[in-house]
Amino acid sequence: MDSKKSIKKLLEDLGRKKITAQKAYALLRDLPYKDLNFARLDHHRVLRKGFGEAVYCEGKSPGHVKKILEEILKRNAHCLFTRASKSLYEYLKKFHSGLKYNEQARIIYTRKEKPRNKKRVLILAAGTSDIPVAEEARLTLQIMGNRVKALYDVGVAGIHRLFDRLPDISRANVIIVVAGMEGALASVVAGLTDKPVIAVPTSVGYGASFKGIAPLLTMLNCCAPGVSVVNIDNGFGAGYFASLINK
Amino acid sequence: MDSKKSIKKLLEDLGRKKITAQKAYALLRDLPYKDLNFARLDHHRVLRKGFGEAVYCEGKSPGHVKKILEEILKRNAHCLFTRASKSLYEYLKKFHSGLKYNEQARIIYTRKEKPRNKKRVLILAAGTSDIPVAEEARLTLQIMGNRVKALYDVGVAGIHRLFDRLPDISRANVIIVVAGMEGALASVVAGLTDKPVIAVPTSVGYGASFKGIAPLLTMLNCCAPGVSVVNIDNGFGAGYFASLINK
Amino acid sequence: MDSKKSIKKLLEDLGRKKITAQKAYALLRDLPYKDLNFARLDHHRVLRKGFGEAVYCEGKSPGHVKKILEEILKRNAHCLFTRASKSLYEYLKKFHSGLKYNEQARIIYTRKEKPRNKKRVLILAAGTSDIPVAEEARLTLQIMGNRVKALYDVGVAGIHRLFDRLPDISRANVIIVVAGMEGALASVVAGLTDKPVIAVPTSVGYGASFKGIAPLLTMLNCCAPGVSVVNIDNGFGAGYFASLINK
Amino acid sequence: MDSKKSIKKLLEDLGRKKITAQKAYALLRDLPYKDLNFARLDHHRVLRKGFGEAVYCEGKSPGHVKKILEEILKRNAHCLFTRASKSLYEYLKKFHSGLKYNEQARIIYTRKEKPRNKKRVLILAAGTSDIPVAEEARLTLQIMGNRVKALYDVGVAGIHRLFDRLPDISRANVIIVVAGMEGALASVVAGLTDKPVIAVPTSVGYGASFKGIAPLLTMLNCCAPGVSVVNIDNGFGAGYFASLINK
Amino acid sequence: MDSKKSIKKLLEDLGRKKITAQKAYALLRDLPYKDLNFARLDHHRVLRKGFGEAVYCEGKSPGHVKKILEEILKRNAHCLFTRASKSLYEYLKKFHSGLKYNEQARIIYTRKEKPRNKKRVLILAAGTSDIPVAEEARLTLQIMGNRVKALYDVGVAGIHRLFDRLPDISRANVIIVVAGMEGALASVVAGLTDKPVIAVPTSVGYGASFKGIAPLLTMLNCCAPGVSVVNIDNGFGAGYFASLINK
Amino acid sequence: MDSKKSIKKLLEDLGRKKITAQKAYALLRDLPYKDLNFARLDHHRVLRKGFGEAVYCEGKSPGHVKKILEEILKRNAHCLFTRASKSLYEYLKKFHSGLKYNEQARIIYTRKEKPRNKKRVLILAAGTSDIPVAEEARLTLQIMGNRVKALYDVGVAGIHRLFDRLPDISRANVIIVVAGMEGALASVVAGLTDKPVIAVPTSVGYGASFKGIAPLLTMLNCCAPGVSVVNIDNGFGAGYFASLINK
Amino acid sequence: MDSKKSIKKLLEDLGRKKITAQKAYALLRDLPYKDLNFARLDHHRVLRKGFGEAVYCEGKSPGHVKKILEEILKRNAHCLFTRASKSLYEYLKKFHSGLKYNEQARIIYTRKEKPRNKKRVLILAAGTSDIPVAEEARLTLQIMGNRVKALYDVGVAGIHRLFDRLPDISRANVIIVVAGMEGALASVVAGLTDKPVIAVPTSVGYGASFKGIAPLLTMLNCCAPGVSVVNIDNGFGAGYFASLINK
Amino acid sequence: MDSKKSIKKLLEDLGRKKITAQKAYALLRDLPYKDLNFARLDHHRVLRKGFGEAVYCEGKSPGHVKKILEEILKRNAHCLFTRASKSLYEYLKKFHSGLKYNEQARIIYTRKEKPRNKKRVLILAAGTSDIPVAEEARLTLQIMGNRVKALYDVGVAGIHRLFDRLPDISRANVIIVVAGMEGALASVVAGLTDKPVIAVPTSVGYGASFKGIAPLLTMLNCCAPGVSVVNIDNGFGAGYFASLINK
Repeated sequence: MDSKKSIKKLLEDLGRKKITAQKAYALLRDLPYKDLNFARLDHHRVLRKGFGEAVYCEGKSPGHVKKILEEILKRNAHCLFTRASKSLYEYLKKFHSGLKYNEQARIIYTRKEKPRNKKRVLILAAGTSDIPVAEEARLTLQIMGNRVKALYDVGVAGIHRLFDRLPDISRANVIIVVAGMEGALASVVAGLTDKPVIAVPTSVGYGASFKGIAPLLTMLNCCAPGVSVVNIDNGFGAGYFASLINK
Repeated sequence: MDSKKSIKKLLEDLGRKKITAQKAYALLRDLPYKDLNFARLDHHRVLRKGFGEAVYCEGKSPGHVKKILEEILKRNAHCLFTRASKSLYEYLKKFHSGLKYNEQARIIYTRKEKPRNKKRVLILAAGTSDIPVAEEARLTLQIMGNRVKALYDVGVAGIHRLFDRLPDISRANVIIVVAGMEGALASVVAGLTDKPVIAVPTSVGYGASFKGIAPLLTMLNCCAPGVSVVNIDNGFGAGYFASLINK
Repeated sequence: MDSKKSIKKLLEDLGRKKITAQKAYALLRDLPYKDLNFARLDHHRVLRKGFGEAVYCEGKSPGHVKKILEEILKRNAHCLFTRASKSLYEYLKKFHSGLKYNEQARIIYTRKEKPRNKKRVLILAAGTSDIPVAEEARLTLQIMGNRVKALYDVGVAGIHRLFDRLPDISRANVIIVVAGMEGALASVVAGLTDKPVIAVPTSVGYGASFKGIAPLLTMLNCCAPGVSVVNIDNGFGAGYFASLINK
Repeated sequence: MDSKKSIKKLLEDLGRKKITAQKAYALLRDLPYKDLNFARLDHHRVLRKGFGEAVYCEGKSPGHVKKILEEILKRNAHCLFTRASKSLYEYLKKFHSGLKYNEQARIIYTRKEKPRNKKRVLILAAGTSDIPVAEEARLTLQIMGNRVKALYDVGVAGIHRLFDRLPDISRANVIIVVAGMEGALASVVAGLTDKPVIAVPTSVGYGASFKGIAPLLTMLNCCAPGVSVVNIDNGFGAGYFASLINK
Repeated sequence: MDSKKSIKKLLEDLGRKKITAQKAYALLRDLPYKDLNFARLDHHRVLRKGFGEAVYCEGKSPGHVKKILEEILKRNAHCLFTRASKSLYEYLKKFHSGLKYNEQARIIYTRKEKPRNKKRVLILAAGTSDIPVAEEARLTLQIMGNRVKALYDVGVAGIHRLFDRLPDISRANVIIVVAGMEGALASVVAGLTDKPVIAVPTSVGYGASFKGIAPLLTMLNCCAPGVSVVNIDNGFGAGYFASLINK
Repeated sequence: MDSKKSIKKLLEDLGRKKITAQKAYALLRDLPYKDLNFARLDHHRVLRKGFGEAVYCEGKSPGHVKKILEEILKRNAHCLFTRASKSLYEYLKKFHSGLKYNEQARIIYTRKEKPRNKKRVLILAAGTSDIPVAEEARLTLQIMGNRVKALYDVGVAGIHRLFDRLPDISRANVIIVVAGMEGALASVVAGLTDKPVIAVPTSVGYGASFKGIAPLLTMLNCCAPGVSVVNIDNGFGAGYFASLINK
Repeated sequence: MDSKKSIKKLLEDLGRKKITAQKAYALLRDLPYKDLNFARLDHHRVLRKGFGEAVYCEGKSPGHVKKILEEILKRNAHCLFTRASKSLYEYLKKFHSGLKYNEQARIIYTRKEKPRNKKRVLILAAGTSDIPVAEEARLTLQIMGNRVKALYDVGVAGIHRLFDRLPDISRANVIIVVAGMEGALASVVAGLTDKPVIAVPTSVGYGASFKGIAPLLTMLNCCAPGVSVVNIDNGFGAGYFASLINK
Repeated sequence: MDSKKSIKKLLEDLGRKKITAQKAYALLRDLPYKDLNFARLDHHRVLRKGFGEAVYCEGKSPGHVKKILEEILKRNAHCLFTRASKSLYEYLKKFHSGLKYNEQARIIYTRKEKPRNKKRVLILAAGTSDIPVAEEARLTLQIMGNRVKALYDVGVAGIHRLFDRLPDISRANVIIVVAGMEGALASVVAGLTDKPVIAVPTSVGYGASFKGIAPLLTMLNCCAPGVSVVNIDNGFGAGYFASLINK
């Protein structure tokens, strides 16, 4: 079916002159999105990005989220709703009994994808308080079909706890480092591996950590190459980015 | 030879009990670094990270850089010196005639590695003034053995200049977006591709761009998933990170 | 009547020597404002600015707002109270049954002015969470007598949702862009139109969006010319400014 | 001729089904831009935005600017190069004798457009040191075909200097306020007029003016409605935006 | 009595050799302060500074405040407790029936001092929401024995409301300007008077006012000389400082 | 003569109905300022503020300063040009031999006014590097006719150097404290006196002093009441403000 | 027993070749930490750092804290849980009746160590509101076995309250200064002693104290040498650091 | 001799009533400082702090420094002038041939004190570019009579370079960590030792290191206890503080 043809293929075909401009335009015009008035659901994202639209719930009313959810479920087996409160989940569950919820990760979802390959993403969290952000990354990765291993409380203040895990580090294909306070873990890990390290600063800390600015700057200024950074507390973003690499 | 055995393998062997603790410790103790008194060259980085140590030249005297260079060339065919002025290059060339220099990228190097595979890294720079940072990324990638395509001046103010290049975007395996001023290009590109996007904010701009803070924040808050960010003007870091993914 | 004569005309007459200095001074002295002790109502603003005083409710007691409202309704058919809570509206409605309330926009008002011309203001909001600010702009424009069209959830992460609306963009006389997170929508829109674009950063986002600083900086540094910016979350200010242009 | 048909018209025609998708796509594909390798000149901006591309010179080599200039002059009678040093002008003048230069505004241009209408833009600068930014705005407006009046040194510290100019304020169609230090002039002017006020903070000042942050914040928080703000020192942006309104 | 002799006089006497070093030291050693373990009451401040210690209540337990109050009332007829909640007042009133409370100013006190002279302090507040801070200044001045006149809602957005009050401005000996949002009132007032202007930025505003940073910077960068600034929302500090000048 | 009548008197007369509105308007219209095109000299400031306009030289061309100087000298015996370089002075001296220059204070002036009374302003500078700012304050005070005593290098790191000067502190009528680095001197001095303390943060320091932000914040948060603050390095502003109090 | 041998001794023995590499590696591998899945308890910290792991409670669930506590009590007589709420204490007390709680310091602990020597740590707090942070430092020091004296409310606004305590200052071996608002106390104390001064900025204050940034900057820029700084409100960190020095 | 008696002893004697108040006052009055008009030399600092006044040269004229130097050398065998340029040294050497200069540390001094004990201070610098700050600390320590060992280029990116130095770490009595970029070294070192760690952030780095803010925040938020921080680039301050501890 035309509507299932990926936009990526469409563009490639156009580039290689396999389809005419007229055809291309027609396809582009009919790209499947659904105007809910308060939201425009990007149905063809699954085509363009390889995964459907993840919905950020904070600041949306339960009614709006419900309508978006229904629209998504019409076309996808998957859904991924981030920053979802437990009460939102309980509201939605009444209508859609198949929904699952991970309270630490604050994610509502339908199912985890079976891993597509044997490559592993390793998540390292510096402290116990960083776990919710790490869990958001872990669950995102699993929903998107990746093997994940997560190790928590391996901060640099007791660096033997990290070094004990060197074999895990060397087996990983991509590494996510989650750390608040001063965020030094990313630098140490990046010095020990030749795999890409995705650093997630968290707002854990107090005083001059300024709700995550301190670890954000630490990670951006990482003296070891091979590190890139996502937004403060953005476990979803780190998981999504790692999944793109891990494919 | 033991000294060529990668640290990665060493750790894996240790993890799988293939080597004894005694052997492991001895190897670790003898890890090849060279103490130059003012610098400790990390010779085994080539083992651990798959590429030798890149040297950041800013703030180092020409004499120090020369000694570091000589120590590196004793063991490596490659060298990669970033933020190098033309006068530094001219000073070093007297002693090492094989050195090359790219003035825009401000990189001194010996040779580009032949690409290891057909995967391509695409570099998009928003404006003409972002080219030096983009060139630093491009040359880093080439030295590390990657195929690269770079397209400049494709900022969002004339978005058809970007859309004309959709086929290039869909063919890329990794994309680096270099942008100053408001840095919006990363968001638009990330919305069009299912490949990882590495965003490099530049200090190009004036007034409230605050030497790169504006595009840095833009990129960290990117509404499209699949983007991670490196330090302001850090073309080398983006190239290095992209190379890790592209392998 | 003299008291209805606009200050604009007064000053013009003075400039053209149509009235004497004495007359002018007398008129200036008698400019209609009402001292309520805790507030000085600027009755002649309707003369000077073409629209009566809009009242910002946050931080004012219901009793004070009630007195200000009564004073305004003595002379104006219109009123426009921004940042008004629902409970404030319910309190005031008891005394003034004709009041209307828009909960999303948080505006209390009496009536919308009939549009004075066919020119249209287009409001584009990047995400669902930006709607309250966009609604504040939309209602302000309608109360001041403008035709408005509002399109929501047209952020750059799925740019075909925006491009589908190019005809709306080309028909608009003024465009308001409302966006939080990284605020890149303003740059893209400004590159597609020759009409003035008024950008409103919102505090929607988390982490390094810093309650609106990220999109504020993005919009100030917009690489496309033709954009100006109002305060974070200031939907009223954007609507008011657009109305001045649209006249 | 097709190539002269404005993109605006194209999109309107498409919206009204006057042209086919095939035709539209063909036109879009052929949008005139010129790839100079280091820059992509946006020739159809004159169609889309009603004025050709203005070129920001800071950070571009004279050789690059020369090539861009030549490309522009092939198709336009106008050019507008901002942030241009005198030495750049002297270099370009050797090849293009018709170029003009305004040293205060730091603009290289070919000619001022004859005003299209009688509407006037008024520029008010708070202090003598704000004049270069004000001149950049003034000349931009003149090149784009607007009537302009500029009054300098009318800061609020001697407010009678401003009030003496009330007739000028009431005659203006759009007002640009340029101010550094504390930037209070915008608030006072906005309280006196029913015309849109475009505020330009300047980096004039010292200590806690933080190179323009102080007046930028002042202007964004302006208590009088009817003000919007452009980037620090962005006289060009203010002039361009005012010209869009004044048309 | 020695214990009533002011420290000022003591130091003067010492400077003029009227008293011996031995005597001076003895007096200094016996300076009256009371150690309450959790607080050291500075009883001789009334001698040194001409007014007893004002107590900042925020963050102190009611029990602690009660003990401090009792210690003060042993020696002073006056007390001045700032940032006091109504519930704190109601708690203290049970034990000390003579206490008074001003809810807007959030001050607990015993009595206002009769003005010592005819000089007047004028307080101008830009908006209705600035009144609490202005009231804190007004009451502080009255308790310290000053004549005060306060005019509210005289912001620069309707500058005729201010100009109508020029006679009040010219009659004042000291002027306090209280303003949030952009804080431009201080600049305008300072341009109209030859009396010292004390500017108090308030945290009133939203978005880019950053809880008072915007008016603070405005006031520090005031283009008219004759202005100095106190901390954000520090009505007490402004009143105290004005009282020192007004003596 | 009418033109010598102070604006203050004019407004008082108007308030007391001693003059008619017509007369008042005529006087206001004729307020003496001189339009030099690039500057509007505020001649009646001497009437309104008790001292002529002080001119800030930074960012003005020597030619402009010369014209302003000549215009001022037509009407005033005094002039006060701040932030003046030595070369500017040497340029101006050719035309006006009576000019004086103080290199530390960077002030060009004609003469110091004879003190009007016996009240003394005390200037305390914390370190040797703060002297230029302190000298700017001292000379401003002398030109405006005040007795001044200045004590330098009395920072809190060796507090006996300050305490040795207690008699000077107790004799002063107003105190200016000039301090960079951490700026703690203002707090200590304010605790020792019942006179108003004007604090001037300086940009002296390094690292986390952030060019004067550290002492600025220190002084704004001063725990002792009786302190107000001027802009960073603003010795002129402190001197001017102190002079207003000292009159 | 091997497992009780301190890591310090181990490393020293290794350095002095008293033990073989094999032995050292075996010991390092067996370093006692306990993986609780959500936390990795660092049991050998008591060996390495001379004191067991202090646990930061904020952001941990009571159940998690309970498990950590039990694991610690298996091996240590001591525990030190910081930022603990009263309700957490009441929950834990049900299971471990020997726990103690200090509500001001918000610390849960088992017992104070008997002082090991006669050296005294002096804690000076500037204001009554700084006491909780000071108490956190005091109790940390006592638990770690130090003699402590604490003096509260000795801020610089009434500096005789401090000077009265000079004998305490001269008797101390280490001094901790706790101060909010402007934090000037550290500078004054450092000028009076030859002992190390550890400065703790607190978030006490309002307006431009920015939740502790003001005293943090003050303390970092301290003009007297001999001062170092810990994080805002970090009483535990200051006490711990002082204990290391005092040993 | 009285003048050699330390202020510390004086205060203790006074506290223990060994000397009379009269005697104490006389001694305090005669505390040796020298008023050079532009500077007040604190001669008794050597008594009070155990080391004479260190002079910060930046911003002082060579003539002033010369006078201060001469005054110091009248009474001290030592001098310590920080932030001294080579040209300043060459100027001073003409008059005082015994002066020494360390160009990296930018310190002028007369001689190093012989170490008073066997305790060692270890300085660790993360990168080659941090050496100047580390050298300032090292030389300060040597001048003050401490044994010092300095190891450079031991950053966390190649952590085996640090671990190879564990014996040095365990032998140290105090450790200074000097690091720019992200400053993670302090956290790792503090996790490995039970000795106090003094962290010095440096301004080495670029982009989001913001001239030292990034490592400053990292170090303040250090997750391992036992770390305190001095100002950015303040090698002298770290050395001085370490020397106080090491005594």
